[in-house]
Amino acid sequence: MSLTAQLLLGSRQASGEAAAIYGINPATNERLEPGYPGASPAQVAEACALAETAFEPYRHSAPAARAAFLEAIAAQILALGDALIERAMLETGLPRARLEGERGRTIGQLLLFAEVVRAGDWLGVRIDPAQPQRTPLPRADLRLQHLPLGPVAVFGASNFPLAFSVAGGDTASALAAGCPVVVKAHSAHPGTSELVGRAVVAAALESGMPDGVFSLLYGSGNSVGQALAADPHIKAVGFTGSRQGGQALLATAQARREPIPVYAEMSSINPVLLLPAALANRTDTLAAGFAGSLQLGAGQFCTNPGLILGLDSPALNRFAELAAEALTRAEPQTMLTPGIHQAYREGVDALSRAEGVESLGSGPEDARPNGCQPRLFRTSATHFLADEQLQQEVFGASALLVSCRDETELAAVLDTLEGQLTATVQMDDQDGALARRLLPRLERKAGRVLFNGFPTGVEVCHAMVHGGPWPATSDSRTTSVGSAAIQRFLRPVCYQDCPPGLLPEALQDDNPWHLRRLQDGRYSS
Amino acid sequence: MSLTAQLLLGSRQASGEAAAIYGINPATNERLEPGYPGASPAQVAEACALAETAFEPYRHSAPAARAAFLEAIAAQILALGDALIERAMLETGLPRARLEGERGRTIGQLLLFAEVVRAGDWLGVRIDPAQPQRTPLPRADLRLQHLPLGPVAVFGASNFPLAFSVAGGDTASALAAGCPVVVKAHSAHPGTSELVGRAVVAAALESGMPDGVFSLLYGSGNSVGQALAADPHIKAVGFTGSRQGGQALLATAQARREPIPVYAEMSSINPVLLLPAALANRTDTLAAGFAGSLQLGAGQFCTNPGLILGLDSPALNRFAELAAEALTRAEPQTMLTPGIHQAYREGVDALSRAEGVESLGSGPEDARPNGCQPRLFRTSATHFLADEQLQQEVFGASALLVSCRDETELAAVLDTLEGQLTATVQMDDQDGALARRLLPRLERKAGRVLFNGFPTGVEVCHAMVHGGPWPATSDSRTTSVGSAAIQRFLRPVCYQDCPPGLLPEALQDDNPWHLRRLQDGRYSS
Repeated sequence: MSLTAQLLLGSRQASGEAAAIYGINPATNERLEPGYPGASPAQVAEACALAETAFEPYRHSAPAARAAFLEAIAAQILALGDALIERAMLETGLPRARLEGERGRTIGQLLLFAEVVRAGDWLGVRIDPAQPQRTPLPRADLRLQHLPLGPVAVFGASNFPLAFSVAGGDTASALAAGCPVVVKAHSAHPGTSELVGRAVVAAALESGMPDGVFSLLYGSGNSVGQALAADPHIKAVGFTGSRQGGQALLATAQARREPIPVYAEMSSINPVLLLPAALANRTDTLAAGFAGSLQLGAGQFCTNPGLILGLDSPALNRFAELAAEALTRAEPQTMLTPGIHQAYREGVDALSRAEGVESLGSGPEDARPNGCQPRLFRTSATHFLADEQLQQEVFGASALLVSCRDETELAAVLDTLEGQLTATVQMDDQDGALARRLLPRLERKAGRVLFNGFPTGVEVCHAMVHGGPWPATSDSRTTSVGSAAIQRFLRPVCYQDCPPGLLPEALQDDNPWHLRRLQDGRYSS
Repeated sequence: MSLTAQLLLGSRQASGEAAAIYGINPATNERLEPGYPGASPAQVAEACALAETAFEPYRHSAPAARAAFLEAIAAQILALGDALIERAMLETGLPRARLEGERGRTIGQLLLFAEVVRAGDWLGVRIDPAQPQRTPLPRADLRLQHLPLGPVAVFGASNFPLAFSVAGGDTASALAAGCPVVVKAHSAHPGTSELVGRAVVAAALESGMPDGVFSLLYGSGNSVGQALAADPHIKAVGFTGSRQGGQALLATAQARREPIPVYAEMSSINPVLLLPAALANRTDTLAAGFAGSLQLGAGQFCTNPGLILGLDSPALNRFAELAAEALTRAEPQTMLTPGIHQAYREGVDALSRAEGVESLGSGPEDARPNGCQPRLFRTSATHFLADEQLQQEVFGASALLVSCRDETELAAVLDTLEGQLTATVQMDDQDGALARRLLPRLERKAGRVLFNGFPTGVEVCHAMVHGGPWPATSDSRTTSVGSAAIQRFLRPVCYQDCPPGLLPEALQDDNPWHLRRLQDGRYSS
């Protein structure tokens, strides 16, 4: 399957009119052909105008048709076969097994949203029938359903070239909600993006979806990304990436004549609490488990455990020793891009130089390009509380162990933390009372609280929350993973005394879509 | 019941340390005693710190206890008796019947949210049980519930001294969600605010709610309002007022170290479409109905019909004539404040001077202070499309009739409109096809679409949406009226492999609160 490096303006392929970007093989630092000319401002505008044109017919597509479209995307991605995996390996340095797993997750997400669309609970229908006899005033007939916001701009993520890029979670949930999508491919994997983008376009064509329901653009965040967030046709933004990148999009979205929501998943260091009994009883397995989670994917996960908290004790010292030792046996791993590698090195260097921070150990030196040398640091709660720089995310396999004198200090460290995607508690039965006291703090700081596990690994299901207070995300009221992600792209509309002939299907008396509806305050089954 | 003019810092009364504000009787322009010293920055901070202290115990209150608190507030407000109505009449110039009705609505809102809290659907529980045997990877046990955001700042509205002020919709929904509330009283009705605030404090005491669950402050928007939106303990803002005021709060909330959501209900001109058959068949009743809706409460409603759209026709001319004539019979009405009256006069003057705008008529001159002289203007679609100033909201009984040559021009006018709280269609059977073509445009512009009614009058129920795209509100994904308003103050949290002994009640296997839960993708009944 040859790459054409063409933008996808709906179903039309077009050569970008701006400077080309190139993928880079991070394992060799070699530039990968072809170059991908970026979208010009006019081409960004064209994609957004097409999305606007597609919005009206697309939002009126019946749930079954929209679900079939999502399933067709999944099938088209699978049909790309090994060419997709091979290109993604070249562009990201990620191993085959990881990418095959990620493809499975990507497809699983699309199928989950197809199910969700068919079930129709996302419509959130509420019907309060008229009460013409009510005194002093009669009640009108009031019916509520949710409608899609409009075209959505989605930004591919560097670290999930499939599951959070062109046809990833944001795209799947926005399409499920009835929103056309304009994707800006991440510049680190344009070829992977092209392949998936063409699969989406093929699925749209075969499903009879309106032209413009999906477009794919290449280019820089500063030009294409900002132009997308500023385009008046775009009504929401989905983004996974750096804090700086997310904040730049937010600023643009808020400065618009009509501000729009930005769902940016940005920054999290994912504290792991080692409670005393668990730490004493399971020192070895905890150290091994932590070291494994830290190094998974060279630490390039939003949920990477970058902060370990424990109470001063011989067991904590032993944990530190074992974890550091585990790092010395680290397998070599290539980071995703030279830029990420460079930022990782800088972050690690800053930690090394920070006052009161001790290096506990590191992985083997790796002279190959963009190799990740995992690092583990240690500091005291006193130092941690005094220097907010110590809670800056270092994207990659780097963690800081903070030892606390007592529960009070541990609680103070938790209270000083910014918002997190996850917080993890390692506890045994004897830790129950302490865990109970700490849980309220964790609930306030994180979108997901885990027990006796590690935060890497995000299940795509109904009950998942991949979200959390600022700066984990820009909107703590939402999740970007799991079926609840569809709610980000919807708004409620109420119909008052609407003549039956004009009522949308979801609101009709005979309930043709068999929806569960809140009828006069009670749910129909 | 004598007024003390004290701030309510939780249950503690304190004299404000900043300059006093005074209510003004708009019917006489007389200053009303007592003066209400404003909160100093330290007092604002104290109220917010108290709210933060109250948050942890308050959010853990059982649904039944929280519901009882809301019911106690309703009872305490009723127990204020006529003193409340009389003070509100003095401070707002609103007639007794209106205020008694508004008190009924305020109490109804509190009772509705008590019901909602008890039913527990707002917890949005989802449970995906563990699948330990799943390959290639087992699934963890994942359980989602919604938690309150934290302390909420609520701004009293000038035009609903009861239903959207101290214990109004924002306060009721925030308290229902489990969020402590700090209210800034609207400076136009401090005495009314004090009475209601004391009722809320009494209810909190008698219900055993934590001190600080509610505080009441007086002072200016620029000082107290801005300080509230900036306070790090405040996690969301509810506001109903001017576009300028809402935008100022938004700017502050977004510039915080941790940005927070602002639910600002700001500006709407609520288009009413007169479709041809309805207009021809019911010219007289439509004109009378419109004139009544326009003048209701001197037009001081967010849902006041400020824009009438019709197709050029003799019937439209006749409608204009009849509506203008109806205005000449307008009863005298006093506007809420000298400031609102002044802004109304300026808005009306600007319309009078605008190019292509003709004055169709006005109410009788009213020489008394702050009297409202209702106004009706007319212009062509061409002029309307050329001058975006013509769609600025004039708060008060002023409307602009826009006559369109044909459906294309009508559609163009709709497309040029900013977001609205409501859009109304007057139609008869013969208008069905046209209404069907226009409905998609209206759904995109407004939070509520009404048929054959007028937008004034907002039912407090489950299916209501009092919201809409910018600038109607700052967040089109929400409503500020009706039971769905609780969702504004919640965020999802996922618990992974939580030991049964630590699981929150809502998530426990035996479902002690008898909640409807999404269990493995299916709703329990």
